[in-house]
Formats: sequence, C-alpha cells, structure tokens
Amino acid sequence: MDVEERLADYAEMTEEALQRYLPEVECLQKSVADAARYSLSAGGKRIRPVLVMEFCRVCGGEPETALPVACAIEMMHTFSLIHDDLPCMDDDDMRRGKPSCHKAFGEAAAVLAGDALAILPFQIIAEAGLKKTLSQDAALRIIKLLSELSGISGMIGGQTVDLENEGKQPPVGVILEMYRMKTGALLEFCCKAGCIAAGAGADKQLSAGSYGQRLGLAFQIVDDILDITADEKLLGKPVGSDKADGKYTYVTAVGFEKAREQARSLTAQAAELLADFEDNEFLVGLTNMLLDRQY
Amino acid sequence: MDVEERLADYAEMTEEALQRYLPEVECLQKSVADAARYSLSAGGKRIRPVLVMEFCRVCGGEPETALPVACAIEMMHTFSLIHDDLPCMDDDDMRRGKPSCHKAFGEAAAVLAGDALAILPFQIIAEAGLKKTLSQDAALRIIKLLSELSGISGMIGGQTVDLENEGKQPPVGVILEMYRMKTGALLEFCCKAGCIAAGAGADKQLSAGSYGQRLGLAFQIVDDILDITADEKLLGKPVGSDKADGKYTYVTAVGFEKAREQARSLTAQAAELLADFEDNEFLVGLTNMLLDRQY
Repeated sequence: MDVEERLADYAEMTEEALQRYLPEVECLQKSVADAARYSLSAGGKRIRPVLVMEFCRVCGGEPETALPVACAIEMMHTFSLIHDDLPCMDDDDMRRGKPSCHKAFGEAAAVLAGDALAILPFQIIAEAGLKKTLSQDAALRIIKLLSELSGISGMIGGQTVDLENEGKQPPVGVILEMYRMKTGALLEFCCKAGCIAAGAGADKQLSAGSYGQRLGLAFQIVDDILDITADEKLLGKPVGSDKADGKYTYVTAVGFEKAREQARSLTAQAAELLADFEDNEFLVGLTNMLLDRQY
Repeated sequence: MDVEERLADYAEMTEEALQRYLPEVECLQKSVADAARYSLSAGGKRIRPVLVMEFCRVCGGEPETALPVACAIEMMHTFSLIHDDLPCMDDDDMRRGKPSCHKAFGEAAAVLAGDALAILPFQIIAEAGLKKTLSQDAALRIIKLLSELSGISGMIGGQTVDLENEGKQPPVGVILEMYRMKTGALLEFCCKAGCIAAGAGADKQLSAGSYGQRLGLAFQIVDDILDITADEKLLGKPVGSDKADGKYTYVTAVGFEKAREQARSLTAQAAELLADFEDNEFLVGLTNMLLDRQY
C-alpha cells in the first residue's frame, strides 16, 4: 500500500466531484461562481476529503459513499481560507502560491464567494440523504456536526479568538484552545463524518474524533514551525509571514524544540487511536507524513 | 382575526426561540456571538418567520413545528444584511435605525458574525429532524431548499448581480432577475418550507413558492418607492440613500407610477395564489399590509 498513490487517487476523485458540484455555467452571477471555483481549484493537499473517505473505508463503507461529504468539507475549508485572507482579517495577498481570492476578484466577490462556499456544502449533503446514497439519519447527523464544528463553537470561533489576540501574547492555554477550534474542529469533523457515512457506531466516532483533534493540533503546530523554517517556494507564501504580522504562535510561546516535541507526541497519540480501526496502514502512514512534511 | 395581533404573536415566538438558539454565554469567542445577537435582535418585521409558521398552519400543521425553520431563515436573512452593509459591499453605516454590525463591532467581527449566521440555520433544522419534531425527510428537503435559495442561484447570486451593476443602468429584465434572486428567493423559501414542515404535497408547495416570489418582487419594488418617499425616522435609514449611492432601481427604470402599478398587480397575483389555501384571511391581510406599508 503506497500512501502517496492512494492520496493521489482520493484527490482525483475529489477534483472530479468538485467540478460536478460547481460547474462552469453562463449566468448573470457568473463572477461569484468563478471566484469560488478559482479558490476551490487552487489545490492544496485535499487532506480533509482524504480523511472523510478513508475513515468511511476503514469503517467498512465505500469511499464513494462519503464523496459528497468530502467535497462539502473541502468547500467549507476553502470558504474559511477566502474570508481569513480578507484585508479586514489576516490581510494575505497570496494563498497556495497564487493571488488570494480578493486580490484576483476583488473584495466584494471574495466575501460572496466565501459565503457561497459556506452554504453549498449543506445542499450537497442533504441531496445525498434525499437520494439515499447516505441514510437520511446519517445525512442529518453529518449536517448537524458540520454546522457545529464550522460555526461559533468551532472554526469561526477559532478565527475570532485568533483576531482578538492579534498583537497580544495570550497564555498557552488560549493558543491551544484557538488551534482546537480553528484547525482541530474541521479535522475532527472529517474523521467522525467518515464513520457516520459508513454507519459506524458511537465508539468508532469517538476514536475518530479524538484522532482528528490531535492530528489537527499537530498539523497547526507543524504549520507554525514551517512558517519559520520552510522553503518559500514550497510553502507558497512568504516564510516568516506570521512573525511579520506580529503573530504570537505556539512556537513563539514555548520555543521551537518544545513545539517540535509536542507535535511528535500529539502525532503518536493520534496514531495510537488508529488501533481502533482495522486496515489502518494508510492512515498511520498519512499521519506520519503530515508530521514530517516540509511545506 | 386581527392581522397586527397575530403578527405580534408570531414575532414574540420568534424572539424567544432566537434567544434560546443563540444564548449569551461566556467564552473566548464571545465577541462574534455578541455581534450576531446584536444584528439578530435589531428587530425588523420578522416577516420571514411569520410566513414560515403561517404557511405551516394553513397546510394543517402546528406553527410551533415550523418554529426552528422560522428562526433559521431569520438568521440567514440577518447574515445577508450584515454582509451587504460591509464597506466593500453597499457600505451602509445604519441598519434598522442602529449602527450597522461592522460600525458597532468592527469589520472582522461583522464578517465572522455573518458567517456564523449563515451556518447555524442548518444545525437548527438538522436538530429538528433528528429530534423528530420535523420528519427526517422534511428536514432534508428544507435544508436543500434553504441552501439552494440562499446560495449562488438565489440570494448570494442576487447580491452579486446587484454589485456588478453598480453605477450602471441595467435593462429592466436584469433588475427583475436580480430582485427575484435577492429578495424573492428567501420569501419563496419561507412559504414553501412552511408547507413542507406541515407535510403538504407538491401542489401546495408550488402555489406557496409562486406566492412568495410575487410577494418578494412586490416587497422590493415597494422598498424602492419608500426609499424615495418615506419618512426618514420610520425607515431607519436616510431617505434617498439608493439615489445617493447612484443605485439604479426598478423605480428609476420605469418611473414611480408604473412601479406603483406593478407592485399593486404583483400583490394581486400573490393574493390570488392564496386561494389554494383554506383559512387564508391572515395571509391575505398581511399581503395587502406589506403593499401599503409606509416603512
């Protein structure tokens, strides 16, 4: 089993499905659809869709069953990137090596494209439930979970705390809680939703959710480390941009060595939780790959 | 049957439920919840919740059954107002006689509060389906409809067309299509969703949707007229603000008299569609009241 190969397969399934969900059509409001498609097709690693489909698979389901959910979470993630980059938020001109959405399409279109990508996911999951590719119960559970973990108690809450602490040096506890909401919540969603799509019970959902939380935290800490150490071309944004923003991260709070150790320890905890799933080699490989990534 | 009295009853049910769905709690991300609550409690006529609950009632359901949907659509509507007011969009400092959300809480908080209010509605409807106060099938249909009619093909599409035509004089057809998406789509949702919540069939949903579309168009045209004629204090925003923005409305396109006539004709068409529903006196009264409103 080759991790890179299966990653590429899942990514390809995702690209194809995303294009079906947001096709190029001529209409009066074409510009906002173009802006949404621009950001959505900017690539990235598609880690979230991969987690959704793979957790569905290790719970005995078909990855295709979870494909609508995989696309939904990639849209929700992209929405958050578009709005986070806005001048009134993190004010980032570049994203994944390309001009950010508001730089390419203007601020109003970027706000609206983000809005559209926050709303469309629910349509896609509801349709899967109505067409019975997902059970109605599973579709409703996944919609509820997505809304909870992207909303005020999840991702949006995390971005709020992030902005409020700009220029400040918050306690480590606040930083970690912010990461839990901002990055952990959506990864928790991916892993849990994959289990729900496969019809797995509460135990599996719990293990998957805890795995996702730990992976998310490790992922964010590695992000902070890479912001200091990575190659600018690989990273797709200026190295040290957090520092230039005056952003106080977990790395600035506890130091490089302790942060690296913490990322390793969280990754090990995450990998341990995978013992609750059979046929987990890919997930274990992916987990370690994310810790060791260079960009 | 007193129209004002029943309106007040429905509005009270909505206020109470909205407070339950967005309670005041102490947490790190309190500010975004406060901003959302600020805009949500700014009042307005609560016409959308009223339509949801009343269409549920005239289809033989209990208004309470549709209350979660009523709150959901009021949140979605409020989200659109918050984002429409942003400096990069319509740049409005006042809303319903109070400072707009970004004036009171800052631009970043307003973007995030809007985002939160676009996402929370889906959680509320999904929960109603999981608790079986709505059937699972009805909950999924309503979620799909809400996402469609608020997204790129509905409300967000309408706002896109609106912004793209700023400073231009678009053909009347474009103006009407913009109104259909921007205002008609959500009102269509309200009426249809009320029918679905009551378990009514496709025929009722169709009549209700057509009614909502016509009411929405009439509502928007009356808005344009009031922007020219209304008392500033009643309207809660400067009279003539559309004109000051250089906004070319249906009224500027066809003239005051023809617009007034069109609003009357659309209202009559809407009222005719109500014949498909029994016990429709309140809806008929409400329809005429909306045409004749002074603010």
